[in-house]
Amino acid sequence: MPDASAEVQFLSGIRVVDFTQFEAGPSCTEALAWLGAEVVKIENPGVGDPGRRLRKGKPDDDPYYFQQFNANKKSITVNLKSPRGLALVKDLLRKADVCVENMAPGTIERLGLGYDDVKAINPGIIYCQVKGFGTGSPYEKNLAFDMIAQATGGTISVTGEKGRMPVKPGLSLGDTGTGMTMAITILGALFRRTQTGEGHRLQVAMQDAMLHYMRTNFATQARSGRAVERDGAHSGGGSNAPSGLYPCAPGGANDYVWIMTSRANPEHWSRLCNVMGREELVNDPRFATPADRVKNHEELDAMITAWTKTRTKHEAMDQVGSAGIPAGAVFDTMELINEPTFEQRGIMQYMQHPSYQPFKMPAWPVRIDGRPPQVKASPILGQHTDEVLTNWLGLSKAEVKSLHADDVV
Amino acid sequence: MPDASAEVQFLSGIRVVDFTQFEAGPSCTEALAWLGAEVVKIENPGVGDPGRRLRKGKPDDDPYYFQQFNANKKSITVNLKSPRGLALVKDLLRKADVCVENMAPGTIERLGLGYDDVKAINPGIIYCQVKGFGTGSPYEKNLAFDMIAQATGGTISVTGEKGRMPVKPGLSLGDTGTGMTMAITILGALFRRTQTGEGHRLQVAMQDAMLHYMRTNFATQARSGRAVERDGAHSGGGSNAPSGLYPCAPGGANDYVWIMTSRANPEHWSRLCNVMGREELVNDPRFATPADRVKNHEELDAMITAWTKTRTKHEAMDQVGSAGIPAGAVFDTMELINEPTFEQRGIMQYMQHPSYQPFKMPAWPVRIDGRPPQVKASPILGQHTDEVLTNWLGLSKAEVKSLHADDVV
Repeated sequence: MPDASAEVQFLSGIRVVDFTQFEAGPSCTEALAWLGAEVVKIENPGVGDPGRRLRKGKPDDDPYYFQQFNANKKSITVNLKSPRGLALVKDLLRKADVCVENMAPGTIERLGLGYDDVKAINPGIIYCQVKGFGTGSPYEKNLAFDMIAQATGGTISVTGEKGRMPVKPGLSLGDTGTGMTMAITILGALFRRTQTGEGHRLQVAMQDAMLHYMRTNFATQARSGRAVERDGAHSGGGSNAPSGLYPCAPGGANDYVWIMTSRANPEHWSRLCNVMGREELVNDPRFATPADRVKNHEELDAMITAWTKTRTKHEAMDQVGSAGIPAGAVFDTMELINEPTFEQRGIMQYMQHPSYQPFKMPAWPVRIDGRPPQVKASPILGQHTDEVLTNWLGLSKAEVKSLHADDVV
Repeated sequence: MPDASAEVQFLSGIRVVDFTQFEAGPSCTEALAWLGAEVVKIENPGVGDPGRRLRKGKPDDDPYYFQQFNANKKSITVNLKSPRGLALVKDLLRKADVCVENMAPGTIERLGLGYDDVKAINPGIIYCQVKGFGTGSPYEKNLAFDMIAQATGGTISVTGEKGRMPVKPGLSLGDTGTGMTMAITILGALFRRTQTGEGHRLQVAMQDAMLHYMRTNFATQARSGRAVERDGAHSGGGSNAPSGLYPCAPGGANDYVWIMTSRANPEHWSRLCNVMGREELVNDPRFATPADRVKNHEELDAMITAWTKTRTKHEAMDQVGSAGIPAGAVFDTMELINEPTFEQRGIMQYMQHPSYQPFKMPAWPVRIDGRPPQVKASPILGQHTDEVLTNWLGLSKAEVKSLHADDVV
């Protein structure tokens, strides 16, 4: 379906110098790339973004992780530790609108590319840093990966079964969740700059960004006066019932359906009684009010379980959902990748890459005038070195050749 | 600390007509409000956004949930079912740059405010819709809340303990995670519009947006050929060891520390041996390579647990983290709200609200030129009706009075 996606030009002409690696930084610049910015990764010759490889010394041995966070970008290799390489990157920064980095604390400054250095050569640049912990935090010099952000940002503490140990939410919110908040702020700064011409310094810490996704929990805590406890199969602050994961046939690891009735919409409950053929429950005094249903939720859960267990999760979702009650089957990653409407709708697309088999992956999820942005190949290491040096800096073929010969690029 | 935050003007002059409710929509328009847009909530007289109340018929009985998703916004009340009310909202839409809605499928169109209606009166508007399921999905008419998006978008399937039932990630990613992708796209469209003057239609589905946060899992699945299984206390695709949650003294519900050694940085492992006073392990053949450590991770986990159990999570994080190994204590919501540096750094701020006690809440996590945006009060229902009708539409005092008298606003 060739027209399920479209090339998006929202950020056409915007130049991003991208020093990011792994995921928290690349997910941010990836959002800019989906929207049409020219995102140029600056990578070390021969090695590149460590996200390119799973094992030391084996570049590009995992074609899946790197591709998803670097689609639609360009790559140039520059030896940042050589004076000529550093000068070259400074020349690129002079021509850039945005630069983004998420190196370990202190690294970019040691390279001579800290905020003051870059601002001095390009006062209009939007200079962006993603770190594990914020400046002024007791941990500001510490390293972080996704799970460290999720531990220290609270998301792990609220995830897991009631009365059992915590678990990590199985997605990389510490990385991509942080990247999204930075992308939003960059775009705000770019919009402002169309009026003022002024640059800005933007900084986000992964721990801090987690709080943004924890706001509902802070509301729950404010009401109760207690730290939020885990109740992963019910959740919602315990204020809606019935609401939770119910087991379905044939009893596999992900054969569950989430059924939710909202206290704000009491008709959810009466509809559910009708779907289950239990109309008499609507007027049962044990379940008459939302508060009654919360109080007697264990009885309710047992009745609903008896009903869901005789159906597959697909049947349960279809019957409950089409009756106007929020319901969702638990889909695993294989079911999702094989769900045909994601591909029909451009929500999943194949990346056509010169080095790898076509790979189906999630695209940017927002439709723009009906279609999500088109997935283009992630770059081979250094693929765009010559192109960018020529287009951005106007270097001659001979100059580019000399940079290669001297191992600067 | 009054100067830990600053008023941000990035979107100064941008007018947003905000029909959103609960969280998926409001989290999107909240991001715009943090950056200085004039976000005007359109609410039903007497009732308002259902996010204002936890219990039917009790408006504003929860001052915490609504406040966090509606800080820095304005509120006007309009009866959309009256012809004069509808005409008034159309007049506002003529003056708006952006409108956003996340009503149940079909509702906004039934109100006469569908895309074609609004485009006809303002071709330059950026018209945005957030739904549970995408147009073209088998579930496109279904209702959704956060947990339904997380069930059908895969995040629940990968969250939980190994071999046990799935659990919901305890944060509202289905809502706020979706809102972030829409906010990014709106800002891209606004930027483009400075050059073209053209409006756009933007649509996102909560299920689809979850895939964006699941990309690392899709990489893991592509490598293994199998649906990703839960392993919530280790995670990371099982390719790093040691990495996981380790129990600490005194054994409370959240007395755990996540310690992570990355295969891409073998010095994490040797540093950890040194921190634990187990230098002999560095050269132990059982743990010599990253692959050896993955293979023998149970032995490793037992040794690390013996060490962490004799320390608090704070001590363990301090010792391991300061030695250059990624480490994070599991902080609960109460520990986070009471952590003083969040307030010192403007990452948490107090909302000063005319009706409620000051409430400490997470602010926008990104620092702009050193400071996060300032938290201002969420609006009282209808607080800005007269102001907006006067400023946007130029209505006279008498005209506004007549609209009140006739229950239009």
